[in-house]
Amino acid sequence: MRFVVLLLLAGTFAWGAADAEAKIVKKTVEYEHDGVVLEGYMSYDDAAEGRRPGILIIHQWMGVTDNERMRAQMLAEMGYVALAVDVYGKGVRPANRAEAQEQAGKYYGDRALFRARLAAGLAELKRQPNVDGSRVAAIGYCFGGGGAFELARAGADVAGVVSFHGSLDTPMPASEGDIIAKVLVCHGAVDPYVKPEALHGFLEEMEAAGVDYQLIMYAGAVHAFTQKGAGDDPSTGAAYNEAADRRSWQAMQDFFDEIFE
Amino acid sequence: MRFVVLLLLAGTFAWGAADAEAKIVKKTVEYEHDGVVLEGYMSYDDAAEGRRPGILIIHQWMGVTDNERMRAQMLAEMGYVALAVDVYGKGVRPANRAEAQEQAGKYYGDRALFRARLAAGLAELKRQPNVDGSRVAAIGYCFGGGGAFELARAGADVAGVVSFHGSLDTPMPASEGDIIAKVLVCHGAVDPYVKPEALHGFLEEMEAAGVDYQLIMYAGAVHAFTQKGAGDDPSTGAAYNEAADRRSWQAMQDFFDEIFE
Repeated sequence: MRFVVLLLLAGTFAWGAADAEAKIVKKTVEYEHDGVVLEGYMSYDDAAEGRRPGILIIHQWMGVTDNERMRAQMLAEMGYVALAVDVYGKGVRPANRAEAQEQAGKYYGDRALFRARLAAGLAELKRQPNVDGSRVAAIGYCFGGGGAFELARAGADVAGVVSFHGSLDTPMPASEGDIIAKVLVCHGAVDPYVKPEALHGFLEEMEAAGVDYQLIMYAGAVHAFTQKGAGDDPSTGAAYNEAADRRSWQAMQDFFDEIFE
Repeated sequence: MRFVVLLLLAGTFAWGAADAEAKIVKKTVEYEHDGVVLEGYMSYDDAAEGRRPGILIIHQWMGVTDNERMRAQMLAEMGYVALAVDVYGKGVRPANRAEAQEQAGKYYGDRALFRARLAAGLAELKRQPNVDGSRVAAIGYCFGGGGAFELARAGADVAGVVSFHGSLDTPMPASEGDIIAKVLVCHGAVDPYVKPEALHGFLEEMEAAGVDYQLIMYAGAVHAFTQKGAGDDPSTGAAYNEAADRRSWQAMQDFFDEIFE
C-alpha cells in the first residue's frame, strides 16, 4: 500500500513538472465572414506536440468577454485548442443589456446569418495546424448555447455540441438526419428565461430528428448559472450557481472523453 | 516528457499490482425487519484497509438478481462496500412479470412498509465494520429507483441517492427540509412507463422541498435502459441502451466523487 502511495505522489509530481513546461498561448485572432472582420480569442498549449481536438466557444449576448477567455484557457490547459469565436464583428462589443439585446436579437432574427458566422469560426478553428479537424466540438453560453444548437442543426461536421443555459427554440428546427453532432444540454431547472414550453419543444425536436442528446437539469439553477458576473440572487432570474457550474463542466469533460476517445 | 510517461506507466503498474491483490468478497447476507428474514447480497474488497463509503443497491421488481450482484461487484472493485438489499423477503423471488407486479405493488401500495424495509437494509450496511457510516449512498433500478427516493423522502441519513429509470411519483411527497440526501435522477427520455406528468410532479416536489437534485435525460432511452435482460427493442417500452447505461454509470461516479470527497 505504501508503495502505491509513493508512486502516486511521484505521478503527481511528474504532472506538476509537465504543467510547468506548458506554454499556454493566449491571443486574439482575426478572421472574416462575407467581408466582415471578426475578432476571436484563441488559447492552446504551444509545448504540446501534434494535432489535438479543437473546441469552439460561442459567447453569451455580451460578445467575447473575460468569461470566454477564461474558458479558452481552461480548455487549453486540458490539452485542447480553443477558439472563442466572435459572432458580432470586430469592435462590436455591447456596453449594456440594451445593446446586448439588440445584437443578440439581430442573430436570433436571422438564423441563416447566425449559422454562417459560426461556420466561419468553425472553419478558422479547423484550419489551425495544431487542430485535428475530425475531432472538434462547440460549446456555448446563453445566446451562444443557442448558437451551438444552430451550428448542429445546420449539419456542421462537429463531434459534439454543449450548451450551458442556452436558448433552445428555433424557427428552423432540425429534421431527421440533419444533426451529426452528439448534443449535451446543461440547463437550469428553474431558468425563467428558457420556458418549459421551449424545453419541451426542443426535446420533441431532438427525438424526432433522431439526435443523440443528453439533457441535464440542475436544481435551483436559473439563467446564466456559469457566469460569476451574474451575481448570486436567483430571484432576478439570472445568477451564478457554483454547484451547477462545477457539475456542468464535469459533464462536459465526460462528454469530450466519449466523443474524442 | 518521456520522464512523465515512464512515471505514469509505473503508476499503472502499481495500481495493477494493487488490483491483483484485491480480494473481492461476494456473499449473501441475512438480516431482519420486524420478524421477516431478508436475504441481501454483499460485495467488498477484503484486501482494502479501513472504513470506506457504503453503497446500498435497491433491486428492480424481480428482486435481487444477477444484475444487482453484478453492480455490487462493480462497486466493490471501485473501492466501496456494496449491499444489495432485499425488500421482498428471503425466498420471495418473483418468477415472472405477474408475480413481480404483485410484489412491487405491495410496496408501492404501502410506502411506510417500503421505507421501513429499506431502512433495515441501510442499518445493516451501516453496521458493517468496514463501512464509514457517514459516507453512505443508495442507488436503485426501476422499482428500486423509486425506493431510493422513498428512502430520501423518509429523511434517511445518506449522502446521496441515485435512481436509474426509477419510478418518480409517490403518495407521500417530501416537504421542505425532509430530504438530506443529494439526488441524481437518470431517466430515459422516452420512457413510456414513467409519464411526463410524473416527471413534472417530481421536479415540482424536489424544487418545493429545496432538494439538491440533478436530472439527466438520455435520448431514445426507454424503461430499464441499464438492464441487458430487457432486450433491445425500444418499441416494447423497456430495452437495454448501451450509451445510456454507460453514461449514467459515469454520472453516478462523478456524483459519488462529489458527495464522498
